[in-house]
Amino acid sequence: MAEFIYGHWAVYETLRAGRRSLEQLLLVENAEEKGMVAQITALAKEKGVRMQRVARRIVDDLANGANHQNTVLRVGPYPYADLEDILSLAQKRNEKPFILILDLLKDPQNVGTLLRVADSVGVHGVLIQERRAVDITPAVVNASSGAVEYLQVAQVNNLVNSMKDLKENDVWIVGLEAGADIPPIDKTDLNIALGLVLGSEGEGMRRLVRDTCDMLLSLPMRGHLGSLNVATAGSIALYSAWQARGWQGWKTEGGK
Amino acid sequence: MAEFIYGHWAVYETLRAGRRSLEQLLLVENAEEKGMVAQITALAKEKGVRMQRVARRIVDDLANGANHQNTVLRVGPYPYADLEDILSLAQKRNEKPFILILDLLKDPQNVGTLLRVADSVGVHGVLIQERRAVDITPAVVNASSGAVEYLQVAQVNNLVNSMKDLKENDVWIVGLEAGADIPPIDKTDLNIALGLVLGSEGEGMRRLVRDTCDMLLSLPMRGHLGSLNVATAGSIALYSAWQARGWQGWKTEGGK
Repeated sequence: MAEFIYGHWAVYETLRAGRRSLEQLLLVENAEEKGMVAQITALAKEKGVRMQRVARRIVDDLANGANHQNTVLRVGPYPYADLEDILSLAQKRNEKPFILILDLLKDPQNVGTLLRVADSVGVHGVLIQERRAVDITPAVVNASSGAVEYLQVAQVNNLVNSMKDLKENDVWIVGLEAGADIPPIDKTDLNIALGLVLGSEGEGMRRLVRDTCDMLLSLPMRGHLGSLNVATAGSIALYSAWQARGWQGWKTEGGK
Repeated sequence: MAEFIYGHWAVYETLRAGRRSLEQLLLVENAEEKGMVAQITALAKEKGVRMQRVARRIVDDLANGANHQNTVLRVGPYPYADLEDILSLAQKRNEKPFILILDLLKDPQNVGTLLRVADSVGVHGVLIQERRAVDITPAVVNASSGAVEYLQVAQVNNLVNSMKDLKENDVWIVGLEAGADIPPIDKTDLNIALGLVLGSEGEGMRRLVRDTCDMLLSLPMRGHLGSLNVATAGSIALYSAWQARGWQGWKTEGGK
């Protein structure tokens, strides 16, 4: 089924990544072709993607009322990966696996922020639970500024089983949890084959997910509030893990 | 002039911090008194704050159409601090100064996220530029989940001069800037008297602000996108700096 990617960066990166079938670029009829819009139309042309000018209300509809910045791209479905692909990429790069595991996160903005950071630190892939968690919707693509178009995201039907599969592949499963009795994130050397688990907004990890972790680590907090937003906490933890790996792969690969 | 704080956590923490004059709690007429609303009304009672039930449209108006979660608190103006207060707090705690400096950030959501993290890592204060940057508006209080009510925020009329004042007080000024030719954030031991400067969304630091820094550091990136959102990057940098300080103050103070 066709999907409609909206917003400058989401559209631009989806075109540039080129992993989906790229069907049509729709521009609001009176949108000026300058700045990012000019970059988008140039890239669409280069990729042989058909363009059409349409009425604003059509674009509004296709973007479900979100802030589309006058651009919508009709594309094929998101190309999910599987656990094998993720482990293969680590092997191919000759790196210890570095995997982000999201337990039932619901908010597209949080998931998008996390996936943008996951791309920044070079994770080999991301696991999400099928059905009960957020899918990689256009809202997630938008919130990630298009970063998700470069990532390997696997939707698994049982997160706990996939965590066990990873453990059998010698990946350490580390859950991030708030709590003054939990050791801080830098207590353990995270330069290991790592699966980092984040719990859902408000509720944290489900009990069985938590119990399947090899270890729990926390972000220390000395302020007045009880917790950080999961996207903020997860972003900090991803960078902390990559820092422990000595910024492996920095400057030697990637895009821009 | 009265301000109207909206949203559960913003209202709750403003009441709990109690630094402003607390004038009146307004609840939407049919809002149920349970969960956070019950906690808010109990705290308002304890603090002797008058409560009133009003029509939804009044609350909508007072919150400027934002997501107010049925609660608005009428309060006095935000109590800004000055540079002296910030340096005094460091001295009082017997810690090296740890200060966040925001150059012309515009988006209340970004500023709120950063202030929430600033509270988490125990900064002694935050400097923002008067007039041209965001004020501590109810939108910022909301985006910080109320954390800003505990922070010392100084609005200065010339950020560069204040940075120079800090340098005269032996504070090192470190600017965060994206760029593969800039050393990574952990290249320098940040366990120093530190002023961390973040540039504005899209534009980065103004030239004179940048030139006034003693040092520039960057967050490495190995992905496909050119940069991270300033709130994400700044949050990671604040935690990286606090980690370098060995999580000083963790478990020995603070709120909840």
